[in-house]
Parts: sequence; C-alpha cells; structure tokens
Amino acid sequence: MDIAAYMSEVGQQARAAATLVARSTTAVRNQALLATADALDSARSELSMANNKDLEKGRENGLDAAMLDRLELTPQRIDAMIEGLRQVASLPDPIGEITGMTYRPSGIQVGKMRVPLGVIGIIYESRPNVTVEAASLCLKSGNATILRGGSESIHSNQAIARCLAQGLAEAGLPETAVQVVKTTDRAAVGELITMPRFVDVIVPRGGKGLIERISRDARVPVIKHLDGVCHVYIDSHADPEKALKVAVNAKTQRYGTCNTMETLLVDREIAADLLPLLASEFSAKGVELRGCEQTRAIINAVAATEDDWEEEYLAPILAVRVVDGLNGAIEHINRYSSQHTDSIVTENYTRARRFITEVDSSSVMVNASTRFADGFEYGLGAEIGISTDKIHARGPVGLEGLTSQKYVVFGDGHIRT
Amino acid sequence: MDIAAYMSEVGQQARAAATLVARSTTAVRNQALLATADALDSARSELSMANNKDLEKGRENGLDAAMLDRLELTPQRIDAMIEGLRQVASLPDPIGEITGMTYRPSGIQVGKMRVPLGVIGIIYESRPNVTVEAASLCLKSGNATILRGGSESIHSNQAIARCLAQGLAEAGLPETAVQVVKTTDRAAVGELITMPRFVDVIVPRGGKGLIERISRDARVPVIKHLDGVCHVYIDSHADPEKALKVAVNAKTQRYGTCNTMETLLVDREIAADLLPLLASEFSAKGVELRGCEQTRAIINAVAATEDDWEEEYLAPILAVRVVDGLNGAIEHINRYSSQHTDSIVTENYTRARRFITEVDSSSVMVNASTRFADGFEYGLGAEIGISTDKIHARGPVGLEGLTSQKYVVFGDGHIRT
Repeated sequence: MDIAAYMSEVGQQARAAATLVARSTTAVRNQALLATADALDSARSELSMANNKDLEKGRENGLDAAMLDRLELTPQRIDAMIEGLRQVASLPDPIGEITGMTYRPSGIQVGKMRVPLGVIGIIYESRPNVTVEAASLCLKSGNATILRGGSESIHSNQAIARCLAQGLAEAGLPETAVQVVKTTDRAAVGELITMPRFVDVIVPRGGKGLIERISRDARVPVIKHLDGVCHVYIDSHADPEKALKVAVNAKTQRYGTCNTMETLLVDREIAADLLPLLASEFSAKGVELRGCEQTRAIINAVAATEDDWEEEYLAPILAVRVVDGLNGAIEHINRYSSQHTDSIVTENYTRARRFITEVDSSSVMVNASTRFADGFEYGLGAEIGISTDKIHARGPVGLEGLTSQKYVVFGDGHIRT
Repeated sequence: MDIAAYMSEVGQQARAAATLVARSTTAVRNQALLATADALDSARSELSMANNKDLEKGRENGLDAAMLDRLELTPQRIDAMIEGLRQVASLPDPIGEITGMTYRPSGIQVGKMRVPLGVIGIIYESRPNVTVEAASLCLKSGNATILRGGSESIHSNQAIARCLAQGLAEAGLPETAVQVVKTTDRAAVGELITMPRFVDVIVPRGGKGLIERISRDARVPVIKHLDGVCHVYIDSHADPEKALKVAVNAKTQRYGTCNTMETLLVDREIAADLLPLLASEFSAKGVELRGCEQTRAIINAVAATEDDWEEEYLAPILAVRVVDGLNGAIEHINRYSSQHTDSIVTENYTRARRFITEVDSSSVMVNASTRFADGFEYGLGAEIGISTDKIHARGPVGLEGLTSQKYVVFGDGHIRT
C-alpha cells in the first residue's frame, strides 16, 4: 500500500466533505449523530465480534491488563457511546453564531461569525470509544474528521466507522465526513500531520511521548495536552476545614487523571498545625508523602528530590513542600507547574486576587478542588481534551475550540475613502 | 558571536520580563508607552543620524527606490510613531477582563480571564517604524517582545530600541521586556523560531517568501498573513450603481494592499449590461483588464490564463471572469481565493445570506469594498497584522489576538464527588 497516496486521498476527500458539512444545517448534523447512535445500537454483536478480535490479538501480543481494559468495548461502554452521541446532538449548535455586530464610523456594520475549522485530525491510542466521542464533537461543530486510532483497536474502530458512515448517509451527508484510517502503518501518522493543504488542526490524545513526537514533527497546528502537574497551595489564612477537604479531594478522588493534585504547598506559618492533620488523612487513604526538609521536620515523609516537583505521579503519591507565604507558592508554581490547574485555599481577598492573576495556568482556582478542571464541570457540554497550550484554546476544549471566527461586514454600497 | 547562545540569553531574559509585564498595572504599561513617545520626540536627531547610516549603506548595496523609501524615517514618520504610541496608550486594556462568570450545578463559579500570551517574536523587513508599532501592541497586551528587523534597518532599529528601553525604565519595567536583536546574522531568525521554551508565538511581517520560510521551519506557533487574492462578485440582483462604486473602490483606492480586489466576478445574466460600464471606469483609471473568454466577448481585455485567477497583482491589473450566478461565484472563490476577503454586491436577501455563510474567508462582505478589511476600520484600535490562518486569530489581529484566556474558578471549599 502506498501510504502517502492513500493518506493524500483521505485528505482530499475530507477537504471536499468539510465544505458540505460546513454548509449543512443544525438539523442535518444532529440527525447524523442520532442515526449513528441507532446504528451502534443495532450493531452491538458486530461491535463485540470486532472488539473480540482486537482483544485476542492484544492478549497474543502480551498487552498488559490496563491496556486490555481500555481496549474492551463492554455493553456498558457501548451504552455510553450511544448516550454520548445523543447528548452531543442535544447541545446548542456553535456554528453561525454572530456576535459583536456594531456600526463603525464609516457606516459599515461589522461582527464575527463562528465557523468550523475545516478538517480535524485526531490521533489517539487504545480506547475505541474515542472514535465516537471525537467524531461526534467534530461533526457537531461542522468539521470533517480523519481519525487515526491505535493499531491494537483497528477492528473495533472500523466497526464503529461503519456505524458512523451509516449515520452520515442517513442524514444525506458524505460518508467521507468522518474517515477512520484503514492502515495500521505508522507512516500514516507522519502523513496526516504534514498535510496542511488537507488538515487544519491535529488533536492528539494519549501519552506524553506520543504528543511530544507529534508536536515536534507536525506541519499543521496542534491542540495538545502535555502533562498535569497540579498544585494546591494552603495559605496561612485558609479555613483549615476547607483546606483539608480540598486537598484530600484534589489528590484522592481519582489518582490517574490529569487534574489530580501532584504537589501540595503549605504556608510555613500554618505548616506545624496543618501538616499533621493532612498526613493522617492521606495516610488513611494510603497516599505516600514525599516531603521537603521542613515538611519532614513536622511529619513522616520520604525525602523529596528535585525531580518530585516536576513529576506527574498519576498514583497515590504526593509531593509536599512548605513555602514562604504566597510569594513562595507562586514562585514554586510558576517554576514547576505544567500550567494545567492550580488552586489556592485562603479566606484572604487580596491573596486570592493575586493568586488568580499571577499564576499562569490554564485553570486557576480559589477554595475549589483541582478535580473540577473538566469540560463537563465547566459547562462546555463535552470535551475533546484539555489544552495546555496558550494559542487558540486553553484549558478544557469543547465545541468552541473546534471552531474559528470570521468577520462579517454589511454595507450599503460603502466604499473606503 | 555564538548566535545560539546569544538568542538563548535573549529568550531567557524575555521569559523573565514577561512575568513582570504580565503582572504590571494598566497605568504602568501606559506610562511606558507615553515615556517612549517622549523619548522618541527627544531623540529625533539621533534617529535621523542612525537612519542616514542605514540609507547610505542601502544605497551602496544598491537597494531599489521602493526599498529605500520604506527604510526612510522622515520627520513625518517619526511624528506618526509618536502619535501611534499615544493612541495605543489610550486603548482599553484587554488584560484581566473576566467574562462569562456563571454558577455551575456543583456550586463552583466559572469564568474566563484574558491574559497575555507571554513572549512574542516579531520578524519583519525594512520598515523601521514596525519596531515601535509591534512593540507597543505587544507591551499594551502585557507581553514581552523579541523583534528581529531587516539587516538593512539595523541602526534605525537600535536607535528606536534605545527609546523603548528608556520608556520601559521610566515606568519601572525591565528593559528586556522589548528586545531588538542586535545581530544581522540570519541564524538568529532560525534560533528565534525554534525556541518554544522562550517564545510563545511568532508574528512574521513581510513578503510571502519570508513568511512561507518561517512557517515551514518554526517550532513555535505562527500567526501569519500569506496573500490577499480578494474577490468582488457582482450578482444579477446587484444595484448597478453600488456595484460600480464598490468594484472601482476595491481595486483602485490603493493597488498595493492585501485587501485590494484582484479578481472581479460578474454574474452572466448582467455581464453584457455591466461589463462595458466597468471597463470604461477601469480604463479611465489606467487599470489593465485580463478577462475570461466570455468577458472578452463583451469588452476589450487581455486573455486571462489559469495563473491569473491565483495572482495577487498588487498593481493596476484586474482579472475579470463571468460566472454562472451565485453558485459559480462561490465555486470560483472557494477554489482560487486566498481566504482573505471576498465581497458580494446584491440586493437579494437569500443570496447575501448564502454568500456570507458559504464563502470560507476571513472577511466576507455584502455591498462593501474589500478595502475595509483592516483593524482600524473594524474598530480594533490597532492591528498587528491580518491573519489568513484559522487557528487562534483570523482576519485583522488587534490586541485581543495577542492574548489568551484562562479559566478562573471560585469555590467555597467545593470538592468533586
């Protein structure tokens, strides 16, 4: 198979389909989403069969239990895909919204209209349900999509792709509006990220290694999520009860998510009072603490090294550091944070205000758990990912992040003088 | 000189300065702009001496008259730089604005705060006044800037840089908040566009060759303007008087700008009536017409080739094509347009509505001259350039295009359950 020729054909088809999707009405795009939901519901046995092929191959290839779990399409996960499609269909259509329409002194009327980006390339790893999630958000926002899933889920992804094609066809949209790359050859990724003529943006989802590789090699803009080294800073003016609640929730509500706290900063002034309470809560939850020297003078903790401040554990491990008030906290965060999500616990107005202004992260919080940094919690209705970039979209990315705005000008024969 | 080491130092200093600029108040940043204006006013003779060195060198090196003109800092141009700084100081500060703050069902309050991008790299050609224009917009929007001007304007740029440093110092901001690269070695550009640790976005300004080169090699996001192949489509339902006014203005008000019309499309139904009127207006202005076969059956015109549909003449030359109604116009535009600015002249509601929806360009207009596509005309107050990209900023880019938005979350000890 000539991968370059194949991908170029996929790209050309996506570009042509994008024009038709962009012009389609809200009703037609919603119909395609609902018809895909029905198609998935009718194809449960085909989906399971295809998924079993992937699972068998995965076991043969020695995939670990976690990978096999992510790969599996259980009946509940199929339910969730169907439910997700219906939810996306029920979201308001972002496309076509005109804002800020005002008259200028010249007499022209100028505003901005929200429009699709065009063709979105999604590169992801083993979870086959991402195929539906990502495709539905891109379609809802008027874009065509090229999906490149992991080779280990190829049969599942192709079975899902057939349901998407059926849904699109039922709504009268071109089946090429959502294309799942048919080859597992890794060269296809290299082509996909270097076709600016056919692809407007790449959204990679997966491990840090994958994302760094794609960012480095892409000739197309990338909306990316690198890592989540999130902080909670407990200020000396914190309400101790809120501090304990927020810190424990931020670390222990789920260990493996990018918005989980990885480093706890405690103001020197209250460290002796608060650290023992925190330590007992974390010890009850089985969280290993790695502390700075000052922390270890107060509670039991493994000695933290410089590496601990930069580590995304995604595990029941927490780095703890005593800092010199708000200045010390902001300095630590702006140096070590991955600029994902950072929270202060304080009752002090001025310190809260300084924290949200001076911490340069995609989400900054006061008296709230970092675990809230999420598209659903923020009311975006859905989430294609969380961006740690500053350009285009920052933080949780919903439908709006998959769109652009063009200027619309209304005149009455106006000319420039 | 070790260019990589030098640029890395410039980058580090810019990153450090960016933190301080981002935290500075509106008043301090405005003070720096006004103090720079005063410094330029006091340094008129130094500026002229430095500029003369560049001009002499330019003449020796055989620069053409147009290049030498762009290079020259006349007293009027120095006045314009000073006036520009004062205008930027008077614009509203985009930084810190919080929008969309709403309560979520969980009880947290979520909104977005506008924040600087960080460090902006500007790469430009001979006009030294760009140094002040670009630096002032980046500073106003809370960013640090690294400017890399053309080698032919190095002395002028360094003289302007001294005024900027003086203005920054007077306001108590670090002089490294605006750095003009001191070397003319082209390797400095290569370094600047490949330092994602230190530079958040690159804005290149200059010819298409420069911009394509930078886009190809950059490892940092680029906000770019490629070309302006702008169209006016005269629909059969156009008011002929408006059609003539808009078409003549779009082509002849200025020939060398990116928002000048390069191709005129005329609906077949009115071609025989309208083309002779248009031809006589354009001939009076000395505009050469290059027409399709159908055009040449009606008026005198050079035979247009396929290349003419893609050409940005920037000159008194106009390509003219007769098209098959609105569908023909949209098809032509979406195939040949550079997605910059396209306008329809019509009195028909449905056709106007279809044109603005289906033409995928950064500015779409009804009954208005393409020459309006401009930051000042759109009310942005200033313009760092016009983006032909879709990501981040599209169309004229003002202060807002140099910013990002982060999420701000207020809670009261809220945790996720």
